[in-house]
Amino acid sequence: MATGYSVVLVRHAQSEFNRDKIYTGWCDSDLTSDGVKEAKNAGKILCEYGFEFDLAFTSVLKRAIKTLYFIQDELDCHWIPVTKTWLLNERHFGKLQGRSKAEVLEQYGQEQVHRWNHALHERPPPLAEMDEHWNGYDRRYAGLPFTPVGESLQQTLDRSLQFWHNLVVPALKAGQKPLICGHGCHLRNLIKHLDSNCSLGKKQLETPNAAPFVLHLDSNMRPANLQFLTRHGNDMVLFKSSRRS
Amino acid sequence: MATGYSVVLVRHAQSEFNRDKIYTGWCDSDLTSDGVKEAKNAGKILCEYGFEFDLAFTSVLKRAIKTLYFIQDELDCHWIPVTKTWLLNERHFGKLQGRSKAEVLEQYGQEQVHRWNHALHERPPPLAEMDEHWNGYDRRYAGLPFTPVGESLQQTLDRSLQFWHNLVVPALKAGQKPLICGHGCHLRNLIKHLDSNCSLGKKQLETPNAAPFVLHLDSNMRPANLQFLTRHGNDMVLFKSSRRS
Repeated sequence: MATGYSVVLVRHAQSEFNRDKIYTGWCDSDLTSDGVKEAKNAGKILCEYGFEFDLAFTSVLKRAIKTLYFIQDELDCHWIPVTKTWLLNERHFGKLQGRSKAEVLEQYGQEQVHRWNHALHERPPPLAEMDEHWNGYDRRYAGLPFTPVGESLQQTLDRSLQFWHNLVVPALKAGQKPLICGHGCHLRNLIKHLDSNCSLGKKQLETPNAAPFVLHLDSNMRPANLQFLTRHGNDMVLFKSSRRS
Repeated sequence: MATGYSVVLVRHAQSEFNRDKIYTGWCDSDLTSDGVKEAKNAGKILCEYGFEFDLAFTSVLKRAIKTLYFIQDELDCHWIPVTKTWLLNERHFGKLQGRSKAEVLEQYGQEQVHRWNHALHERPPPLAEMDEHWNGYDRRYAGLPFTPVGESLQQTLDRSLQFWHNLVVPALKAGQKPLICGHGCHLRNLIKHLDSNCSLGKKQLETPNAAPFVLHLDSNMRPANLQFLTRHGNDMVLFKSSRRS
């Protein structure tokens, strides 16, 4: 019987924009001091469960990179290779970036905000070139063939899947144990898609800041269950697939 | 006229073993709290000079990795790719690792210690398999074809040159600006070799903890001068080659 695979994922710890309830996307908001504590706590949880990683993936945004650093510091695995890729960046929220969620809700209304959050092909209003949050002059994106000005869920998903199939799946098949430190909307979107034929596809997955979880996959790389880890071994299985490989 | 190249190097900040005057080598001694301050200060110096890096290299030892992290944090360039390689590790000091320098001096005498420090082919006494500092079970070295038990300066130099020619030179030729965070004996040895026909080859180069310096190279990648950077722009040119390309 094939035993399957598993991968540990964690959303970055609290950023300044999280604290202030601001749309972040590709804005490079730093961790708050509470965020630093949360990140260290995530490392302690993974340590308590005895996890050992061979490599890690994160975005090119500092809230994720720094969260990963503090986790590595707790796990004493500073030396593992870390791949930082824009494919793991949070969804680009266009003109909403840098604006308070309450203000956006007031301006555009509940229905429109709901469509932006849930409809696959709905794009947020585009960020104007030369807006203070425009990434056109940011050296980290110099290699991209375009400068994003706002993505639909589908566009974010396309690059998530590129990341998953080109970087994660080969690592898992090679027997490596990866740790992925990413972003809320991006990770939810990815997991929901991978599990599209299963229970999780039908409900809203919550990804609290810096709460590590294990995605168990069957031998065909389809999600079998998702397990949130908490301190002192009180883990919680969020869903269990009815499929059996 | 060819303009040449330049590369910024920095030795890691103070480690616990540095503070306690203990041979470190491949022991994974952590930064002291003073070391963390030194590392941040190194970042502030590089910031003051307006340096921007495209990529960074460091060893697989946490005193170097963490120093680099704090420098990146000051420079706000968390996102640059970082290659961690054992080729950049400090020289392996064999059985001397973990022992106080005073104790080693007393046991082996000034002359022997001087030979270990300066003679190219002199190896320290080998570390016994299963010694507490032996790296045979360390996952980070699982890919190596052998487990080092103590290196001569020449053996350390061989891997330094492999690092230099395979990783640094191609990056420089591609127009990239690398930052290298390494180790004292390793970096001194490398620079001395690169500059073997020049002034620096004849004198002892000091590499204080977390003091960034720029190695300017001519168009043939030979050292032209070496410039230590200090705060408020009081930099100091340590040597200037008499060669001109």
